[in-house]
Amino acid sequence: MTGKEQGSRDIFRRFSADYVPQIDSLITGLFEQRIASSDAQFMKDMYASVSEFCLRDGKRIRPLMLLNSFNGYRRGFGSAAGIIKLATAVELMHSFLLVQDDIIDRSELRRGRKSLHILMNDMYGKFSLNPAIGTDIASVLADVIFSCAVDLVAAADVRSAYKNRFLQVFSKTYEMTAWGQILDSLCTMPSSIDPQSDAPMRISLMKTAYYTMVYPMIMGYVLSGGRNEREKKRIEDFGVPLGVAFQVRDDLLGVFGVEGDTGKPNDSDIKEGKFTLLVQNAVASLQGSERAEFTARFLKPEKSELDVEYIRSMIIDSGAMNDTITRHRELIDEARIKLDELALTGRSREVLCGVIESVEDIPV
Amino acid sequence: MTGKEQGSRDIFRRFSADYVPQIDSLITGLFEQRIASSDAQFMKDMYASVSEFCLRDGKRIRPLMLLNSFNGYRRGFGSAAGIIKLATAVELMHSFLLVQDDIIDRSELRRGRKSLHILMNDMYGKFSLNPAIGTDIASVLADVIFSCAVDLVAAADVRSAYKNRFLQVFSKTYEMTAWGQILDSLCTMPSSIDPQSDAPMRISLMKTAYYTMVYPMIMGYVLSGGRNEREKKRIEDFGVPLGVAFQVRDDLLGVFGVEGDTGKPNDSDIKEGKFTLLVQNAVASLQGSERAEFTARFLKPEKSELDVEYIRSMIIDSGAMNDTITRHRELIDEARIKLDELALTGRSREVLCGVIESVEDIPV
Repeated sequence: MTGKEQGSRDIFRRFSADYVPQIDSLITGLFEQRIASSDAQFMKDMYASVSEFCLRDGKRIRPLMLLNSFNGYRRGFGSAAGIIKLATAVELMHSFLLVQDDIIDRSELRRGRKSLHILMNDMYGKFSLNPAIGTDIASVLADVIFSCAVDLVAAADVRSAYKNRFLQVFSKTYEMTAWGQILDSLCTMPSSIDPQSDAPMRISLMKTAYYTMVYPMIMGYVLSGGRNEREKKRIEDFGVPLGVAFQVRDDLLGVFGVEGDTGKPNDSDIKEGKFTLLVQNAVASLQGSERAEFTARFLKPEKSELDVEYIRSMIIDSGAMNDTITRHRELIDEARIKLDELALTGRSREVLCGVIESVEDIPV
Repeated sequence: MTGKEQGSRDIFRRFSADYVPQIDSLITGLFEQRIASSDAQFMKDMYASVSEFCLRDGKRIRPLMLLNSFNGYRRGFGSAAGIIKLATAVELMHSFLLVQDDIIDRSELRRGRKSLHILMNDMYGKFSLNPAIGTDIASVLADVIFSCAVDLVAAADVRSAYKNRFLQVFSKTYEMTAWGQILDSLCTMPSSIDPQSDAPMRISLMKTAYYTMVYPMIMGYVLSGGRNEREKKRIEDFGVPLGVAFQVRDDLLGVFGVEGDTGKPNDSDIKEGKFTLLVQNAVASLQGSERAEFTARFLKPEKSELDVEYIRSMIIDSGAMNDTITRHRELIDEARIKLDELALTGRSREVLCGVIESVEDIPV
């Protein structure tokens, strides 16, 4: 690690430390106000659970990308209160998606604690004979979270033309991510596997690269007054490799990570049958009976520990792990090159260097 | 039926005939554009299903309430394109909620055709080993529909201060309706029944009265430039009894209606164990062993035809049906009185008379 890179990471850390408390305090205040104005106990209790869920430790990477881009294109420091409201709306959209993701993946944990549908089942299961009551409630609480995001957008004091442009990107983000989620559902427990499928790359683009990097940066850009389509294209050219690298890293950690670091078990992706770029690389590298055996075990709805071990070792033996690590390195290099082309001020550029750094590290 | 009432109904019918095609054509165009710009076949196919779902025959009552209120407070005729976009966004919010409602209620039919999660299961079940794939996809397609609503809001060319005020009411509508849905879930297959509970009335208010009547009218009012809090209160005083009457009518039709007229079976509310105002009236009127028997049968998760018949006949014998019909009449009368206090132009008032008329009729 060079001195410059160490410096970038510190700048990113300081940037985070400046803004994350402001985002979290807006979320806290928003739900406190709603708890105070609710006249029904179940609403107060559920708002409290939702607030706890949204405020769990997390990187808040999407609002930070928005704010950093706003600062960098505006060529000023500090963000107006209205912009922080919009950045917080993006974080609430993310919380909304996490609730939904956990329901669809039947995940019991999120950020090291119970997922929202499990919490709701614990709290309200006794009042209902409906065995899915926890899921039914959480799926609609996700809407409550999203409506709070829309309310923040309505309340943000930002020039109206900019807000309209922001809202267009915001709805596009929401829509594209939904499509990524749908494709992800279609690629989880698939009934067959096509090693040539473009689905894993599409999921990485829709559910991660555009959602986490490209669109939040474009939101910051349009809120700074930017309208240049070529600059938006340059943001895309930077955010796509960085975002795909982010997903590839997540795929690797999902199979080879340490639960203590990642906060999730390293067998759930395999058990759930997630058709990731890593799995696709393995299938593509294997031949004949090995491919057939790997595919058959991967497609089993219920996998034994032996199946999981077999799949994990074949991902290594086929060379897929190394190929994927190489691909990750290439994507990071590409992001570094494209970063130079952005018309950002020096400090925002340094923050992005820090983001690249954090995506570069794969603690496996 | 008096001549005046007949006239109001015709005015409402003509008003509908003026605007419904404009709303439907915006929805058609919006999805056609998305089908054309999607590069994946599954997206094209799903957009087509979503479009068909949103365009099924329905009253489009919420956008019509918005447009009528806009026209009536603006004291002009005809609505600008931007206002129709916002009204259509309200209709798409409704489609979003219908998809979600069908998933939560496990309903197989909507407006006489397959509900969206059943359609998705038919289309994509074969590609997945996940038995809930149809539900998983439809729950996220609901988000796609909602994101299209947000996109319409972003695109609507409306004075920015008015649009902000609209967006505040829009997010409030979304949030309150979500709470109504959650309370509805808690009151469906409950583990016990409290005849003093305020839940059935709360559900009627949140899921119907504010959602269908009060908020769409307030949206139209703020879009016309209105800011008078007393007028908003008068809209509330009118919309609440009308909206609760709408729900009471729906409850009565859900138990005593004819499937050919209502488009849904008249035993599903009882079978699902919906704790409506009608059921609450029955429990409150029954005493001793009759109350215990009624409650026990109502709480059974699986009800026989005999149970359904018993529950239906006890709703009649207890006097609950007649009490509920009387309450419905009182609510309609109250709405008529409150209508006179609204500062609306004559034509919009006539349209609302027509709406009252249509809520007044209970074809049982």
